Order: sequence, then structure tokens, then C-alpha cells
Amino acid sequence: MGTGAVRLLGLDPGLQHTGWGVLQCTGNHLRHLGDGVISTDTGLDLAERLAFLHRGLNELIAAWQPDEAAVEHTYVNKNPAAALKLGQARGVVLLAPALAGIPVAEYQAMEVKRAVVGTGHAEKQQVEAMVRMLLPGAGIRRSDAADALAVAICHAHHRQSRVALARAYAP
Amino acid sequence: MGTGAVRLLGLDPGLQHTGWGVLQCTGNHLRHLGDGVISTDTGLDLAERLAFLHRGLNELIAAWQPDEAAVEHTYVNKNPAAALKLGQARGVVLLAPALAGIPVAEYQAMEVKRAVVGTGHAEKQQVEAMVRMLLPGAGIRRSDAADALAVAICHAHHRQSRVALARAYAP
Repeated sequence: MGTGAVRLLGLDPGLQHTGWGVLQCTGNHLRHLGDGVISTDTGLDLAERLAFLHRGLNELIAAWQPDEAAVEHTYVNKNPAAALKLGQARGVVLLAPALAGIPVAEYQAMEVKRAVVGTGHAEKQQVEAMVRMLLPGAGIRRSDAADALAVAICHAHHRQSRVALARAYAP
Repeated sequence: MGTGAVRLLGLDPGLQHTGWGVLQCTGNHLRHLGDGVISTDTGLDLAERLAFLHRGLNELIAAWQPDEAAVEHTYVNKNPAAALKLGQARGVVLLAPALAGIPVAEYQAMEVKRAVVGTGHAEKQQVEAMVRMLLPGAGIRRSDAADALAVAICHAHHRQSRVALARAYAP
């Protein structure tokens, strides 16, 4: 990694499929390093599926050594049972970077859309199309991985603003 | 532990307070070994709170060495946002025993009430009073700990039936 380069891990939690994407952020420049999906076996018990997800996240973090992580605030316009199920996966997803000492930022869906598409009311397909445009040559195949990269892009924008602000106010 | 004695860990998940209780089960006899509550600091980030909860559960499991764990299926008659929040803690609670190789059983709230009080429509206060009666001298102070012990009692009943059934059908 060059001087000032930071690796960002974006995560899109789900019990069945958790998307992930790693970006390298150097100043304003973003480079796609990797992405993928951790899928759990629906035939296993819930606790076993969560353990599988946890181990997958740990392997991911060990392999890519991200400096910061970002997770989207999940939609909760679903029914309570679906929200509970999603929450269980989300808890395990937030846990892994925290245990590795990696700061975890959370962003509202509208913030992610605004950062990637320019408006907070974009459609899911627009977000995914923009991620593919912003990261040309990345060959992102999975929708869950594109969503994870969208959160990482959002985090890159926000942390860049914070860095600029910190510099402006530095003595 | 005597021959055939099994240690059961009951867990009542919550982001702010997770109750726990450990019972020793020897045949039909239940003995209270310990209980308590893991509370997280509301001033911390969500990911940090989940990491604190995870470390607390790991310490608990290392200290008590349970053979089996049981968690109640959480009520989801709340709003989706509350269900998501609870789900996040519940995912982390289910994860810890699974990572330690301890089987995790889940029970519906009605099954817990039926096992402890005798009816699936008991009030929360009745359940807690019965737990205190079934485990005299345990000095259970916290409501969350009593709820965790109720799940452990329910699991003891169910596993006892399974053991009896397995013996009845053994060659």
C-alpha cells in the first residue's frame, strides 16, 4: 500500500448471503481490491449458520487486513420476524471487525444512495449500476457484493470529508 | 460433576442486558450453579457493545464449561426496529456457544412457560416466581437471570424426555 492508502471493508449483512467488498482509498482515488459473498447453508441450525458466517468474516479480515469497516443501517420496513432474523446476522457481521479492533461505521441507506448515485431516493438497480461504473474493470458479479461496495464507497466519501475538515482546522 | 451430570447454560438475549444461568442436571434433579447478567454500556457504539457482550459470553463459557446451551425464541410482537436491535444481540448470543462447539437449543416462549409453570399462557412474573421455587436457595436477584434459568429448566425437561425416549427405543 502506498503512503496514506487505507483499506475499507464494506459489508451487506444477511443470514443467507452476506456481501463484502474491499476498496483501497488513496486521497480521492478508489481502487477495487476484491468482493464476494459469504453464503450459509439453509439446512444448518441458526447458531451453526451464524458460526459459519463469523468464521468467514474472520478469514476475510485476516486475508485483506482492512483498516476500517462500514455497514449499512438495514431497512426495517419488514415484518418484526424478518427484522429479527436479519438482526441476528447483522449482529454477527458488526461483531467480527469490532473484535479485530477495526472501527465500524454505520450509514443510513439514504446516505449510501446519495454518496453513490447523488440522490437519496435512487433505486437499488441504479446504485448497483453506479458501483460498477465507479469501479470499472472490477467485474462485480453479485448484487450483494455490489451493495457492500456501495457502503464502502459511501464510507470513503465521508471519511475523506472528515480528513479534509480535520486538516482545515489543524493548527 | 457426578456420573451423568450435565451442565446447561440458559441465555436470555438483550443488547442492554443479557441474562444467563447455569444448572446442573442429573437425571431428574436440577441444581443451580450460577446466574447473572451481562450489561453493555449504552454510551458505546453498537459494534463495541456487541464485542463486549461476545467477550462476556466467552468468559462465562470458559468459567462454567457448559455441555449444552438453550436460548428462548424471542417475542417479535414489537416494531421492526426493536426486533432488529434485539436480533443483533441475539445473533451474538447464539454465536458464542456455537463457536465453542456447544449445541444450542431454541425454545418458543410458550414451551418455556409450559415447562416451568405448567401452562403456556403464564405471566412473566409467574415464570420468575416458579424459577425461584424450583431452585430454592439460589438467591436469584435479577429478572433477566431468572428468565435465562427458565429456558435452562425448559431445556432440562426436553432433553430428559429425549434421553428417556432414546433409552426406550435402545436395542
